[in-house]
Amino acid sequence: MTTLPTEIERKFLVNHAAWAAAGQPEGQLLSQGYLSQDPERTVRIRLQGDEAWITVKGQVQGLTRAEFEYAIPPGDAAQMLETLTLSALSKRRTRVFVGAHVWDVDVFLGSLTGLILAEVELSSEDEPFVRPEWLGQEVSHDPRYFNSALARSGVIPDKAT
Amino acid sequence: MTTLPTEIERKFLVNHAAWAAAGQPEGQLLSQGYLSQDPERTVRIRLQGDEAWITVKGQVQGLTRAEFEYAIPPGDAAQMLETLTLSALSKRRTRVFVGAHVWDVDVFLGSLTGLILAEVELSSEDEPFVRPEWLGQEVSHDPRYFNSALARSGVIPDKAT
Repeated sequence: MTTLPTEIERKFLVNHAAWAAAGQPEGQLLSQGYLSQDPERTVRIRLQGDEAWITVKGQVQGLTRAEFEYAIPPGDAAQMLETLTLSALSKRRTRVFVGAHVWDVDVFLGSLTGLILAEVELSSEDEPFVRPEWLGQEVSHDPRYFNSALARSGVIPDKAT
Repeated sequence: MTTLPTEIERKFLVNHAAWAAAGQPEGQLLSQGYLSQDPERTVRIRLQGDEAWITVKGQVQGLTRAEFEYAIPPGDAAQMLETLTLSALSKRRTRVFVGAHVWDVDVFLGSLTGLILAEVELSSEDEPFVRPEWLGQEVSHDPRYFNSALARSGVIPDKAT
């Protein structure tokens, strides 16, 4: 069992032109897909660079969620993502340090090409942070941008600003 | 990818009284359950003695079926079997040598208590073998005794002879 992180995650669209102008590196390729999307027993395959994992999660119960994660050979993960998984998606993730915070900027690929999202972890919903110049509209509470919704629909809800 | 075994498996009911009289050991506890029963991407948790595995299988295509198996901590498997999996079943498996062949005798537990099945692997459907004294009626081709059917229904189709 692992307890849910108490950190708050805020999620934003990214201005494409400003992001390109920032000249950040291309980021690490991250692909994931599901063998089970049953919320009571999800099974996810994730491939990131030359590491890969199979992750089993139970339903959220109170503040905890059962989670079991095992490293697996990346070649196995690539084969499962190509032939077996549901809702596979790929993105390039770049880690950017801005002021006191770390941003994960995800440039989506495949059917989600054109979507760029930035996430930051804060210790509370109203913790102040420096806005990077490429930051667009906040979508933290927009269910269309939840990871599960993006994985399921595979289409961009709204082009980034 | 692994190729399907070319061996033929024959399955029989077991006569309870004759099995008890044979005085075989109790056998190793084997529990399994599924995180996904989707035939295109099954995910099975199996706990046998102090070893455990998570196994992913794709759909049978021609003579092959994609299969990926990873050893996992037995404590994790026990927890998943108790709280997360579908169609969990437990049995005690005893390996019995009779003539030139090896029999796996499964004494089912839980909701399948009362069912005892014996399986033997042969190199062809008509390979001769010595019938152990406890062997009952053959159910190799009876879909009610397929592993998948037993796992799904969790009830005994017919009491053993």
